[in-house]
Amino acid sequence: MWEFNFVFRQNAQDTFIVTRRHHHTARQNAYGAFKHAHIYVQLKDRYTRIIKDGSHESRECYVIGSHQFLHKNRVKRGAPECTDILQGRNESVMSLDEISIKPHDALAAYLAADMEAVNVLIRERMASEHAPRIPEVTAHLVEAGGKRLRPMLTLAAAHLCGYDGPYHVHLAATVEFIHTATLLHDDVVDESGQRRGRPTANLLWDNKSSVLVGDYLFSRSFQLMVETGSLRVLDILANASATIAEGEVLQLTASQDLATTEAIYLQVVRGKTAALFSAATEVGGVIAGADDAQVQALFDYGDALGIAFQIVDDLLDMSGDQNAIGKNVGDDFREKKLTLPLIKAIAKANAEERAFWVRTIEKGRQEDGDLEHAIALLHKHGALEDTRLEALAWADKAVAAIDQLPEHPVRDMLREIAGYVVARIN
Amino acid sequence: MWEFNFVFRQNAQDTFIVTRRHHHTARQNAYGAFKHAHIYVQLKDRYTRIIKDGSHESRECYVIGSHQFLHKNRVKRGAPECTDILQGRNESVMSLDEISIKPHDALAAYLAADMEAVNVLIRERMASEHAPRIPEVTAHLVEAGGKRLRPMLTLAAAHLCGYDGPYHVHLAATVEFIHTATLLHDDVVDESGQRRGRPTANLLWDNKSSVLVGDYLFSRSFQLMVETGSLRVLDILANASATIAEGEVLQLTASQDLATTEAIYLQVVRGKTAALFSAATEVGGVIAGADDAQVQALFDYGDALGIAFQIVDDLLDMSGDQNAIGKNVGDDFREKKLTLPLIKAIAKANAEERAFWVRTIEKGRQEDGDLEHAIALLHKHGALEDTRLEALAWADKAVAAIDQLPEHPVRDMLREIAGYVVARIN
Repeated sequence: MWEFNFVFRQNAQDTFIVTRRHHHTARQNAYGAFKHAHIYVQLKDRYTRIIKDGSHESRECYVIGSHQFLHKNRVKRGAPECTDILQGRNESVMSLDEISIKPHDALAAYLAADMEAVNVLIRERMASEHAPRIPEVTAHLVEAGGKRLRPMLTLAAAHLCGYDGPYHVHLAATVEFIHTATLLHDDVVDESGQRRGRPTANLLWDNKSSVLVGDYLFSRSFQLMVETGSLRVLDILANASATIAEGEVLQLTASQDLATTEAIYLQVVRGKTAALFSAATEVGGVIAGADDAQVQALFDYGDALGIAFQIVDDLLDMSGDQNAIGKNVGDDFREKKLTLPLIKAIAKANAEERAFWVRTIEKGRQEDGDLEHAIALLHKHGALEDTRLEALAWADKAVAAIDQLPEHPVRDMLREIAGYVVARIN
Repeated sequence: MWEFNFVFRQNAQDTFIVTRRHHHTARQNAYGAFKHAHIYVQLKDRYTRIIKDGSHESRECYVIGSHQFLHKNRVKRGAPECTDILQGRNESVMSLDEISIKPHDALAAYLAADMEAVNVLIRERMASEHAPRIPEVTAHLVEAGGKRLRPMLTLAAAHLCGYDGPYHVHLAATVEFIHTATLLHDDVVDESGQRRGRPTANLLWDNKSSVLVGDYLFSRSFQLMVETGSLRVLDILANASATIAEGEVLQLTASQDLATTEAIYLQVVRGKTAALFSAATEVGGVIAGADDAQVQALFDYGDALGIAFQIVDDLLDMSGDQNAIGKNVGDDFREKKLTLPLIKAIAKANAEERAFWVRTIEKGRQEDGDLEHAIALLHKHGALEDTRLEALAWADKAVAAIDQLPEHPVRDMLREIAGYVVARIN
């Protein structure tokens, strides 16, 4: 187990709050903790900035040291000055304005204490006393990291609605378990070899392990949600699970069928992405006892955010910069997946173009140059631009939904996240 | 849709109750309904007998005719004399003593009205409005039939505890869905091509469909149980799901490891079989508001019954008659699965025998004659006999548990089922 802590400079006007990331690291090959060793420094009640590694001496502002974190100084949201971990070292003044932070990281910083509780719970419940294969696979997944956006949405929604109980942590872990289980099963379904730049569990072990450990995580998520004692929460998550599974099966048949409409695409997208986003925000509101209008607004926010998120992903696959998107351009095309840009272009296709789509997607017979031709057709029909506008419209819907909620720092962060999701295409 | 109904003889002393089986038949190739066209005739409040087809004219007793069932005469448990479907035909007197019935069929007859409601619910919830692959796969599963023992256990437990609400039907369907989802995933894990003599879904469609339709059925089961509104029921089923998934993963690593003990075997067996049996009986009691001692007895019954059931299955694989067990002798051995007889023989193995087990099971290098040699080693160490006694002991435990419940015709049927499970080895 590694702990990361940082000495920082406190100036006269502001109190900095320091939060830790990767407090406990994954069990195996835990280099990830070093790679991501950055700190969040928050100007109290104002904004949050990130400082990556401690070695930028050319900058006016940098991390000046680290030492063993003292548990009595454990930093909580909105909590104390952290004066006593400051030690006499060669310090430089921080100029926070120089540094920028992603909205996701700002939310992570705000929710750091809760997220730590979520991570502890996830680690505890991912384990298995009896079946050794389970901790092997789950450690691999924990280590793979991921942004944990979904559990943060649950925590954020609960905070936003003034919750002060313990169960938002259970629900956040629930949501992450469902997500992880879905990834395990998706990797079997897609016959993937890589996720987030690492070999998938089905490659490292086998499909059996991915299927069964996925089932195990589903059942653990189920236990966690039952512990909240809220039938309404259970109802929401049961319905979300059904939408997810139905959307996944729908994708099997729809994704290679040229008759797939935008309405069907939307249903697939709700299944693969938006249903869990909307359930994540909705249960956060429900557990906090929010009124119906607020719960609806939270649902609408999650739903629109998830749809925007997936459309951006699909758009970048056909229009993005390889380095920026972290995967090969055209992966969906090569896997013969009908995504929104293609559906829009196919709707306007002439006979010859239609024959091209039939060959490359329905029959899956692709040749060199097909990807380039496909992209050209998308441009010709304005399908990329139309898709981009649609993603922006969904992000706007998310913003409109969240703006119905009471004023709160978390509300502002969620609004920024909606903007951030479409920033790469805006 | 086919309906089967039968004219029967009512004598002076007794009232016969007629129940139907295969009222609605499966969607495709519904020959099964004909194959199993038999009727149950129950001597009211006494015992139940079965008469197979109507053509045994050499017997004193046989079915004397059938005609369209009248819905107003729909037969319910403990319900009316069915005089008015008797029609003037060439009738023969029934001598019920001549005919025998399996305890499972007796219970099915007793629960026929409820089981019909369960089947309607299963058909309704297995469907999917949106994803066409789902009804294809689920129709295949429904058609495959199966004895539906697990849902009957839930209905039986609820009746036994005097339940008169509607939710035992939901729970019975829940249990069947969990079972079916598990089978779908098992077939992927085992790379099976056949189940119950029919090609498996992963063979007819693909592994993807089996994984995702399995997930869909899990999520539908989850919705069904939430509808009962009982947190205690949800808690039981969540824990059972975790035990099932953990047992399945444990089997992955344990089944080829000679260090596997009888304790680990028991845990695998609880996962693959007993956990759902015990949850099935337990939730039936809980939904009926049974007291803690009764709920415990129901759990113990299901647990012991499930373990006995699985041990018998494992034993017959190494000692059964191919025709009687409906699969090849030695299938488990060929799949390198350590079952109880093998574990017992390995515990007593000398060095040479141990080398044999290492080669055939751990390393999986099997040659002609290995199965026969393995069976000889089981005989040598009395492993088959010890296993047989262990199965009988678990059946006795099941009987002892059920005997703690109040007197009730269903209690007697459940007791007989425990005997029937081990009848093939007794």
